[in-house]
Amino acid sequence: MKRNVLIIGAGGVAQVVAHKCAQNNDVLGDLHLASRTIAKCDAIIASVHDKGAMKQDGVFQSHAIDAMDSDAVAALINATGAQIVINVGSPFVNMTVLEACIQTGAAYIDTAIHEDPGKICETPPWYANYEWKRRDACAAAGVTAILGAGFDPGMVNAFARHAADAYMDKVTSIDIVDINAGNHGRYFSTNFDPEINFREFTGTVYSWQDGAWQTNKMFEVGREWDLPVVGKQKAYLSGHDEVHSLSANYPDADVRFWMGFGDHYINVFTVLQNLGLLSEQPVTTAEGLEVVPLKVVKAVLPDPSSLAPDYTGKTCIGDLVKGTKDGEEVEVFVYNMADHKDAYNEVGSQGISYTAGVPPVAFAMLIADGTYDKGTMMNVEELDPKPLFTLLDTIGLPTRVRDADGDRAWNAN
Amino acid sequence: MKRNVLIIGAGGVAQVVAHKCAQNNDVLGDLHLASRTIAKCDAIIASVHDKGAMKQDGVFQSHAIDAMDSDAVAALINATGAQIVINVGSPFVNMTVLEACIQTGAAYIDTAIHEDPGKICETPPWYANYEWKRRDACAAAGVTAILGAGFDPGMVNAFARHAADAYMDKVTSIDIVDINAGNHGRYFSTNFDPEINFREFTGTVYSWQDGAWQTNKMFEVGREWDLPVVGKQKAYLSGHDEVHSLSANYPDADVRFWMGFGDHYINVFTVLQNLGLLSEQPVTTAEGLEVVPLKVVKAVLPDPSSLAPDYTGKTCIGDLVKGTKDGEEVEVFVYNMADHKDAYNEVGSQGISYTAGVPPVAFAMLIADGTYDKGTMMNVEELDPKPLFTLLDTIGLPTRVRDADGDRAWNAN
Repeated sequence: MKRNVLIIGAGGVAQVVAHKCAQNNDVLGDLHLASRTIAKCDAIIASVHDKGAMKQDGVFQSHAIDAMDSDAVAALINATGAQIVINVGSPFVNMTVLEACIQTGAAYIDTAIHEDPGKICETPPWYANYEWKRRDACAAAGVTAILGAGFDPGMVNAFARHAADAYMDKVTSIDIVDINAGNHGRYFSTNFDPEINFREFTGTVYSWQDGAWQTNKMFEVGREWDLPVVGKQKAYLSGHDEVHSLSANYPDADVRFWMGFGDHYINVFTVLQNLGLLSEQPVTTAEGLEVVPLKVVKAVLPDPSSLAPDYTGKTCIGDLVKGTKDGEEVEVFVYNMADHKDAYNEVGSQGISYTAGVPPVAFAMLIADGTYDKGTMMNVEELDPKPLFTLLDTIGLPTRVRDADGDRAWNAN
Repeated sequence: MKRNVLIIGAGGVAQVVAHKCAQNNDVLGDLHLASRTIAKCDAIIASVHDKGAMKQDGVFQSHAIDAMDSDAVAALINATGAQIVINVGSPFVNMTVLEACIQTGAAYIDTAIHEDPGKICETPPWYANYEWKRRDACAAAGVTAILGAGFDPGMVNAFARHAADAYMDKVTSIDIVDINAGNHGRYFSTNFDPEINFREFTGTVYSWQDGAWQTNKMFEVGREWDLPVVGKQKAYLSGHDEVHSLSANYPDADVRFWMGFGDHYINVFTVLQNLGLLSEQPVTTAEGLEVVPLKVVKAVLPDPSSLAPDYTGKTCIGDLVKGTKDGEEVEVFVYNMADHKDAYNEVGSQGISYTAGVPPVAFAMLIADGTYDKGTMMNVEELDPKPLFTLLDTIGLPTRVRDADGDRAWNAN
């Protein structure tokens, strides 16, 4: 059954979501795109038409919305007849958009955890602070809500589930490794909104080890990884959403997230942080102007979406999962490799936006056809990953496996 | 004859000037301190009294002034009966204060070249763009104006003159080396106003070599120096005021200025500059606020005057002068060494402010007693340096010499 889709947000990931929805509007129904600035929605929809991305004739409309206003979102869901909402707006709007879905019965999909603008790295598990408090309400209303359904979180949760199901009786550790071996050619840039990017790394690093939450500082723990395609790369123990659900579903396993950073990124980040330029608290200039330093840093950095045309190289994101099978120790690396240039050619975005934006469309398609329409709130590892991998093999993000038997497609014999 | 003094400015250097004038108010007369913010003047005068710095009972008054307003400065000169003006305000006010001196007949002393806020590193020689255009007017009015009478520029110009006069027939090169081997204990700080400090290093580096102006970029040319007390230190070819007068007075010599920088300073500077955070041109944040990045950097950095209590270590600033004497090649290093802690104990300031603030008071005393009251505009190397060295031996900045014959006081036998 076709279902109308409402996309919330008009940034780099929304651009990818819009293109992918258009490419699959024979499975999905009417498409709607809403953000605070309608001109950004119009620009995305224009790029969809420029690429001839609509698979078949259909509706793709833009709307202005304040997504912090639950009632306004609910009204837009009703007005558009949307049965699936893909929320790729700011992480500050998750709870109001989710509330609108509970109110209207629409399915809800997001790609990042809810954040309070005034807080950084709250008490773990993060999902328990906001989203999981509405789990019973979703179940009562029969609302399907799939949390963290981008790449990481998202695909990496499915990778962990697949490794556990297919290769082991017992899981002992899940190490998620995110390497961007691409080159944007600028002195320095973040790959998505600098304000959100830096917020990830200025607080405590939480990991789940030995059955408990452990804390570290950013860049305190680093390790070199040898990965398919991108080769040897250094990655650092980092805080990330998926650790906060995988630890609940695999409490006996250590769950860690590792983000790759070059020395140059770390140096720039360290200088800015030590000077106080990453602070979200305002300072006052000698002339009496009150200004948030982080917002000035954002203003001087490149717009991440401007990187796409010149971006070259590949990303490799995957899970190294260890455990036992029939009493023997086993390990498997489940991963995807994406190419920045290919992403730009297909949807006009760089690879980081591409990997985050394609999966939520796959989830929407699997809700539309009933496979994932469970009528309750779920994290991705709570769903059977095989339909997801099968679909993504055909729409842009194929899953691969590397273990003692070699490197191959996830479903190869 | 005692002469009343008006000090313009209320920053770190003004604090030193105020204390030193007070310590010598038997030679100088009534003291006056004026800046845009009268509270800053009051705080400095209070610190003078706290230290019991007034050598004898006398006047020390604060005034509010807009030093960009020549007529207002002239009125204040007349109202206070000031016969000497020590301008240690922003480098943007030199020309208006000089004009007020020409109008009233007061002697003029400054410690840094005039700057236009909207321009960086103009066409050399810099003095010809502003100050020297008023040389004839000073001579016609019989006004003594001593330009660049701090440490560098200032004492280093006198060091060059002394080396040339005392040790050689012909000068072939003058290398001024400024090393601060002190430690303020902060992650990063400039030693004076960050806005002025960074402006020195974001433009073209001019040096005078082979009888012509040469251009380099900042940090392009570095050299290790082995200096008295501070030992081996790396310094970089930099643009600086004194090169622009010494090259006119010693046109056959190469004239270069070398500023010491640690790798950490260079790294922080490089990151900030490459990101665009040192720009004096405004940017607009996502929220629509227009803000000059350099002013935000200034707002997050420590107030340089706050460094003084914890500052330890020494500065070494001097001239390595090479030439020939009776056909033989000779070289001599003329220098001063200052101690941050000693400076703080005496006048409540760190060593960088101390070395810049003591010399203009010595010049004022030598104008007051007639020695340097020449009734025209001069750069420091145009004056006989011996009275200056003799006075500074007693009031805080003794001059030393190191050459093939050893390391000794400038006037040792």
